[in-house]
Amino acid sequence: MSETVDSETVDSDTVDSDTVDVVIAGGGLIGAGIAWRARQRGLTVRVVDPEPGSGASHAAGGMLAPVSEATYGEDRLLRLSQESLRRYPTFVAELQAATGHDVGLRTTGTLMVGFDADDMRALDDLHRYHRELGLPAERLTPGEARRLEPGLTPRLRGALHAASDYSVDARALHNALLAALPAGTLVRERVTGVAVHNGRAVGVRLADGSTLPGQTVVVALGAASADLPGAPPLPVRPVGGQILRARSLDGEPLAERTVRALVRGRHVYLVPIGGNGMIIGATSEEKGWHSRVTVGGVYELLRDATEVLPALAEAELTETLVRFRPGTPDNAPILGPTPVPGLVVATGHYRNGVLLTPVTADAIAELLATGTLPAVAAGFTLARFTAPESGPGRFASSDTDSAAGVGRAASHMPAV
Amino acid sequence: MSETVDSETVDSDTVDSDTVDVVIAGGGLIGAGIAWRARQRGLTVRVVDPEPGSGASHAAGGMLAPVSEATYGEDRLLRLSQESLRRYPTFVAELQAATGHDVGLRTTGTLMVGFDADDMRALDDLHRYHRELGLPAERLTPGEARRLEPGLTPRLRGALHAASDYSVDARALHNALLAALPAGTLVRERVTGVAVHNGRAVGVRLADGSTLPGQTVVVALGAASADLPGAPPLPVRPVGGQILRARSLDGEPLAERTVRALVRGRHVYLVPIGGNGMIIGATSEEKGWHSRVTVGGVYELLRDATEVLPALAEAELTETLVRFRPGTPDNAPILGPTPVPGLVVATGHYRNGVLLTPVTADAIAELLATGTLPAVAAGFTLARFTAPESGPGRFASSDTDSAAGVGRAASHMPAV
Repeated sequence: MSETVDSETVDSDTVDSDTVDVVIAGGGLIGAGIAWRARQRGLTVRVVDPEPGSGASHAAGGMLAPVSEATYGEDRLLRLSQESLRRYPTFVAELQAATGHDVGLRTTGTLMVGFDADDMRALDDLHRYHRELGLPAERLTPGEARRLEPGLTPRLRGALHAASDYSVDARALHNALLAALPAGTLVRERVTGVAVHNGRAVGVRLADGSTLPGQTVVVALGAASADLPGAPPLPVRPVGGQILRARSLDGEPLAERTVRALVRGRHVYLVPIGGNGMIIGATSEEKGWHSRVTVGGVYELLRDATEVLPALAEAELTETLVRFRPGTPDNAPILGPTPVPGLVVATGHYRNGVLLTPVTADAIAELLATGTLPAVAAGFTLARFTAPESGPGRFASSDTDSAAGVGRAASHMPAV
Repeated sequence: MSETVDSETVDSDTVDSDTVDVVIAGGGLIGAGIAWRARQRGLTVRVVDPEPGSGASHAAGGMLAPVSEATYGEDRLLRLSQESLRRYPTFVAELQAATGHDVGLRTTGTLMVGFDADDMRALDDLHRYHRELGLPAERLTPGEARRLEPGLTPRLRGALHAASDYSVDARALHNALLAALPAGTLVRERVTGVAVHNGRAVGVRLADGSTLPGQTVVVALGAASADLPGAPPLPVRPVGGQILRARSLDGEPLAERTVRALVRGRHVYLVPIGGNGMIIGATSEEKGWHSRVTVGGVYELLRDATEVLPALAEAELTETLVRFRPGTPDNAPILGPTPVPGLVVATGHYRNGVLLTPVTADAIAELLATGTLPAVAAGFTLARFTAPESGPGRFASSDTDSAAGVGRAASHMPAV
């Protein structure tokens, strides 16, 4: 049935004969989002994940904040992010209508606050960048900031208000996406590789030794997408993040909107969730898969968070966790075809997986349904890291054949 | 079968006809310890607990430190504690021999450290008290302390070394005690009250409505011992404690001995456990059952712990939990008979449950086997809170009949 990249022979008895249009490796927000949109296009889909939503999607703060995340030199990513944010209300409305699930979309904006002169210079730089890009943001005095969020410490020095940022309950969004999929879509197995036959992806290999066949395979394994047997090497690395959850014991909200703080040079964000919850994030660690919830990581997050919002000290600390962002060389996702015919990737969303879920799901579903990656995603293919003309940010692959192959991939999917 | 204190009738079909000698309500360290010692005396025993060892025993730091815990005005408790410590090596050796379980007894002593002049005055006061009592303890310079524990911060001001303190892995000890009990001893049900017939305790009432009969009933429910229907009111209150666990990621020990620190007036203790573990404790909260793991509680423990032992910052934070110490008006346990014939209590161990397990188990087993509470425990009966002659510390009960009744209880158990 399949001549896979390694030497094992697949027993045809264990192969599902009901070949679907699309097999998606990874059932986090990206995989589940693609599955939902692909189903809406009439494609048959399987999502393969032993514990869907237990990775980065489980930890995500859920900020939908292209403006407050904006960084010099990432204009292309900013435009993709803004496009995804623009699609969010419709995406959520459709999903809520289809499932009856509330996904906790908040449109209350983001307040960025600083504590010392350097923090304020950083906020002013960001504000200038906003104006250059024509993005809405407003400088506030400490008093104005505290009128918006009375729980903020009086010790802050100033603030920047990005009223058009949203946030969403990433876990609720993920649950809704799963609920929107037809029964039987989810296959609770671990993907160990891409099954390749005559140079073409024909399914995914599972931990039990079987192969789940599909006309097209989508790799949406987040930080685990690199080095998947059968797939070309992807320039994705795990960036560890420790993140906490708290909730007020009196049932009252701890804040009404996202607060991003620079506390004398240290970053912390606070995202209200549910009626009385708060997500406190996040460390950023380049330790491969070795990051853990540490004494120092939790201590610094709690210290900075309580400095910003003192009443947090009385809140219950309900979760401490670490997960892994799928980082890429240019901090932008990898979307679309690969040099392996039949193999599509949607990974490398780094800090923006929740924000980029709608545009990723739409673009990949379009690719799967029509064979063409839409223009909005065309700049984000794997080819940008490997094609000679792609300039800086080139992915230094040790697999020369594969890298050469990627050069031939454009924004069109190899013939299905 | 039983005329219980409330109006429900017990269906005799649901009553176990195989009446045992002793039914123990509560399977924490105290209940399990009593059960083991009572079995060794030839008594038949049942321990009733839906989740034995999940209460204070699960959180305990396991310090066996009568000297470093010594407080002015608690000489009687100190003597009981010292007696229990004296029994620890034998208790543990017998238990390890019976079960093959290692319970992690450490005899490496306690190092008390201080950071400012007030901290050092408190350590000097404690040292003076030690000398008055003839207890071994030695003042160390910061350099001497760091030669014992190289991980200690150079910023400490001085130290006091109590070389004769021990510590034990409270969870391992509890597991060993359960393993030492014959199969069938443990009944995984929740106790809802004491079954009383003709004024005498005849068993415990279970959440499923049945009664588990026993010749004698022992209440060992820790902080949950107060206000048990059928038992006299006990002056036990829950004192919340948040406590953390960490472990080094390189597998190396974080310290060799218990470190108790006064960090500019704030208390924190660090108890090494296993090969690379550390228990970090503890808050002390008088909020009834309302204490939770809070942002502020965890933050302060982590801040103080990392100030004492900076390398802790790199350790994995593996647990954050809150449990409830069974506090009493004089911080000492309540051991022995009650005004209700057939009803014995062993609770109120406050901060010293692990330390006092051997002497409590021995004394209560002696009472159960012979009808006489041994002299070592005679000063710790419920009567001290209720008898007119007991002076200060009298338990102000609103139940006058019961309080009067307790006055008649001496250190001998009412006729079985």
